[in-house]
Amino acid sequence: MKIETLAIVGVGLIGGSIGLAARRRGLTRRVLGAGRRRDSLDRAKELGAIDEGFLDASAAVQRADLAVFCTPVDRIADQVLEAAPGCAPGTLLTDAGSTKAAIVRDVERRLPANVFFVGSHPLAGSEKRGPEHAAADLFQAKLTVITRTPRTDPTALERTAAFWRALGARVRVMDPEDHDRALAMTSHLPHLVAAALAGVLPPELCELTATGFRDTTRVAAGEPSLWTAIFVQNRQSLLDALRRLDDSLTRFRKALESGEPAALDVLLTQAKKVRDALGN
Amino acid sequence: MKIETLAIVGVGLIGGSIGLAARRRGLTRRVLGAGRRRDSLDRAKELGAIDEGFLDASAAVQRADLAVFCTPVDRIADQVLEAAPGCAPGTLLTDAGSTKAAIVRDVERRLPANVFFVGSHPLAGSEKRGPEHAAADLFQAKLTVITRTPRTDPTALERTAAFWRALGARVRVMDPEDHDRALAMTSHLPHLVAAALAGVLPPELCELTATGFRDTTRVAAGEPSLWTAIFVQNRQSLLDALRRLDDSLTRFRKALESGEPAALDVLLTQAKKVRDALGN
Repeated sequence: MKIETLAIVGVGLIGGSIGLAARRRGLTRRVLGAGRRRDSLDRAKELGAIDEGFLDASAAVQRADLAVFCTPVDRIADQVLEAAPGCAPGTLLTDAGSTKAAIVRDVERRLPANVFFVGSHPLAGSEKRGPEHAAADLFQAKLTVITRTPRTDPTALERTAAFWRALGARVRVMDPEDHDRALAMTSHLPHLVAAALAGVLPPELCELTATGFRDTTRVAAGEPSLWTAIFVQNRQSLLDALRRLDDSLTRFRKALESGEPAALDVLLTQAKKVRDALGN
Repeated sequence: MKIETLAIVGVGLIGGSIGLAARRRGLTRRVLGAGRRRDSLDRAKELGAIDEGFLDASAAVQRADLAVFCTPVDRIADQVLEAAPGCAPGTLLTDAGSTKAAIVRDVERRLPANVFFVGSHPLAGSEKRGPEHAAADLFQAKLTVITRTPRTDPTALERTAAFWRALGARVRVMDPEDHDRALAMTSHLPHLVAAALAGVLPPELCELTATGFRDTTRVAAGEPSLWTAIFVQNRQSLLDALRRLDDSLTRFRKALESGEPAALDVLLTQAKKVRDALGN
């Protein structure tokens, strides 16, 4: 894998980490960063995540042979489709969005024939934002899902996989809809639950929280606008996941109401088994 | 605060940390540890948490001027009442249980007049177990709740507060029922939610979890029997807390069903505000 010019649209935690990892690993000759705020681009440049900053995303993308869109999920398809017509033939475009079905569908519908798009979602990040939280090893040994549809070009798929592997990630190919159903359960539902729990804490009880409450609600500190867009794009699968959680909560409620220690113990033991399997 | 002999019943993460902190801070001349397993006591001694191990809890407690019961919440009252009649007059007994109302009520009902009991709950710990996870600074700047009832001896209350402060903790005095209502929301409900969420993860999706799922479910790795006992002792308040969570989840569901980004954004913004106020 060798990229002449890499463009990163949205140089925050994820975009900044891609830039740091690509430069650290000598993956590319230069990294162009695009963003809406000059000060963010300047910080990303100071931190060594990009070589040059652009306020016009398309201008950066059209100078690149590979571009990654690390912007909010409700912006990605539009930005890809705006930049694509001016790209050199063979340019590979990908993204880092937490939802895939809507983005891939919207992009594939209107993408010029000589430019390629493969959806990506690196399962890395945190509730923090901005290039100052970027890390060159963010993707190391983490999974990145890349999407394949009937319209996906096999060579573009292979190049996308090679790109993420070159950044240290493991790669798994999935159908975009399968991705969204799975992530509804593994990422979007936990966020909803964390927010619902944080939302019921009366201010006077803040002092009586400890690591348990803080761990369980940590992701609720994420940026609301980013998560609103994710929830809206994946609302049907998220509603399905929420129904399964409701069923699970009902089992706990009934066990509590029964006052039967054995019933609670079964539920807590099963949960511990799942959690232990995930590691720290 | 100066203790001649400190007894710790249950030398795990919490009990071990009390021993380490007390010895590190020169709070006591010697620390006696009691437990059901000789190997645990040996490890606690090797780690420097206790000076001597006892398989008979009462034997350790009756040699002490202050004893802390760090055993499962459904064992504490019985152990206190078993040891108390043989204690020297003026002995102070306290505990580290995550529930307080049932323990304090059961103990106060039958405690000999010349032995004192004050309920305690240090808001520290983790899903880990055993003296090897103990830390001398576990209580540093953390809150410990101690309980006051109409029957609490003022001098015993003050000595209990001084004990925890000497271990580095901040102290807050609460009514046992108020404690349990608050902790239902700040600790027991997060545990239930984490377990309910872990419980719905299909095994084939483990690979697709990231830090969000792992943070949100971390406490579900806690020991089921300990948490079953906590849930049973605090079931009414926990059911109340669960109802409030259900209402909160319903607000999210309705916002999702409406497809209105603004409705989701309001909920996520309010949750972020609460979570940000708690710090890391």
